[in-house]
Amino acid sequence: MDPVLDVVGVGNAIVDVIASVDDSFIGDHDLVKGAMTLVSAERSAEMYDAMPPGVAASGGSAANTMAGVASFGGRAAFIGKVRDDQLGEVFIHDIRATGVSFDVPPAPDGPATARCLVQVTPDAERTMNTYLGTAALLEPPDVDTDLVASAGITYCEGYLWDVQVAKDAIRVAMAAAASAGRTVALALSDSFCVQRHRDEWLDLIEDRVDVIFANEAEVCALHPADDFDTALRRTAAMARTVAVTRGAGGSVAVRGSESATVPAAEIPAVVDATGAGDLYAAGFLWGLARGASLIRCAALGNLAAAEVISHVGARPKTPLSQLAASAGLAWR
Amino acid sequence: MDPVLDVVGVGNAIVDVIASVDDSFIGDHDLVKGAMTLVSAERSAEMYDAMPPGVAASGGSAANTMAGVASFGGRAAFIGKVRDDQLGEVFIHDIRATGVSFDVPPAPDGPATARCLVQVTPDAERTMNTYLGTAALLEPPDVDTDLVASAGITYCEGYLWDVQVAKDAIRVAMAAAASAGRTVALALSDSFCVQRHRDEWLDLIEDRVDVIFANEAEVCALHPADDFDTALRRTAAMARTVAVTRGAGGSVAVRGSESATVPAAEIPAVVDATGAGDLYAAGFLWGLARGASLIRCAALGNLAAAEVISHVGARPKTPLSQLAASAGLAWR
Repeated sequence: MDPVLDVVGVGNAIVDVIASVDDSFIGDHDLVKGAMTLVSAERSAEMYDAMPPGVAASGGSAANTMAGVASFGGRAAFIGKVRDDQLGEVFIHDIRATGVSFDVPPAPDGPATARCLVQVTPDAERTMNTYLGTAALLEPPDVDTDLVASAGITYCEGYLWDVQVAKDAIRVAMAAAASAGRTVALALSDSFCVQRHRDEWLDLIEDRVDVIFANEAEVCALHPADDFDTALRRTAAMARTVAVTRGAGGSVAVRGSESATVPAAEIPAVVDATGAGDLYAAGFLWGLARGASLIRCAALGNLAAAEVISHVGARPKTPLSQLAASAGLAWR
Repeated sequence: MDPVLDVVGVGNAIVDVIASVDDSFIGDHDLVKGAMTLVSAERSAEMYDAMPPGVAASGGSAANTMAGVASFGGRAAFIGKVRDDQLGEVFIHDIRATGVSFDVPPAPDGPATARCLVQVTPDAERTMNTYLGTAALLEPPDVDTDLVASAGITYCEGYLWDVQVAKDAIRVAMAAAASAGRTVALALSDSFCVQRHRDEWLDLIEDRVDVIFANEAEVCALHPADDFDTALRRTAAMARTVAVTRGAGGSVAVRGSESATVPAAEIPAVVDATGAGDLYAAGFLWGLARGASLIRCAALGNLAAAEVISHVGARPKTPLSQLAASAGLAWR
């Protein structure tokens, strides 16, 4: 049966609180610049107290990616968990308002909706500290396997692997996709996350994953090697397709003997790197779902990443379908 | 006794949810473009459902003004009411993080923290629909009269007048300021708000108000006349000082026989008019609190308004003390 949806994303349902800080803030609060660190509710509250005023906007890696797919005109759904609190309401509103289906019922009790404190430094790098709250309680019954089977691609966020029940939920989703003959994609999410789960992920990738999304550090964490090219070659040997972002170096995608290197799109200024990888994945997945060539998938990824880093916030502000048309990358 | 604080603001404690919309959204949802309309919890929820994704940022007219005074380097406090919910937490965090004292305890029960849905149209005009929630339950015991007496200026937001208990709270604050020999300022807030309360306000202004903040429409609503100059003259006859914003026409301030007309600061593009009047008041109050001349107060007001309309959101992003120094308007 032809897929009804282009992509279903499985990930943490998070509301970002974004503020601009000086580099000294990162040092003063012992943060790991550029990384995503999980924090307790208490640590999150302490850090929030220390932060300057911010803006709250829906986030979550795979959720941002689904918002991007929808912005290209794709049919996307998201699976993740919020509580029935005000930030949960914001998350649900925003994901649906972008055109993404989201039907996991909010938890009536338990921890609060996940909150990610995003510190943007003057170099446009983002440093993230996440209190997972209810997002970490995504469990197998939350995964609608019929929904998953109806999507051409199931895209899972590596960040979810930090919690046992969510890990089980990913396995359920991947199994449902595989048995329906669909494509399974995994985002490695963060190099520290790769280090935490390397052995399990190597097995998971061998067994279940068709497409890997990563940046250079994540590829090198998965297959430690003296150079990136070796790490990439080893990673590419494990999955049908590997798509890697290289920051200002653009991106490289490998599928068997085929490879596609696309330079980064030129933009006036990088304002906030948050969401760059998520939106690269959105463009790539959108192309993949609609049968585009490898190089076109990569170009669509770069296009979406360029849009999202040109403003504050991790979801597109200009419709990506419009940008794709202007760039001659429109796809059916 | 010399004042300990420059200004204390009394107003609605609100979190804004800001989204960009087309003009058709305003028509389709029967909104009054450019105005602030009070809505029920149900209507607010319906409108939110229809809105595109937005960002949440602390707002509230007098609260924005106090954030502006603090950004100039002034000592400011705010009196308003939130609930102990997530948006209340966001409000408290942001106002304190700007350096404004805020010590009204959050309500442990009752309606939610106020939410203002702000629709920004392509012409940069903002249309606001506010669910007041707990903000409207500000009552006399919430007003710390010692705090009020310790501030050189007490600045009250006209919007608060829409609710009986909050009205009483304003009267208590104004009385405390007056009996300590301090200056009382009132923002007329919105021309529809003026129409709703005109008779009461004319009495209030005669009895209690030293400084009036308004825009042209509000002045004309207070003293209907064929032309703005006549309305302004009549308004100026009622209070020691009247400070009026005129959009692209800059501002005009009148104090007795003295008047100061300042053209609008030139900025590359008006992005979002939200907060223009609030920040004009911030600059003016900051000058007034520190004994600046009328024209300098007005210039400081224009400077702050220009900053806030050059980006999305109703509070300054660049420290106003820094802008004042660059503009040669630094004040002690």
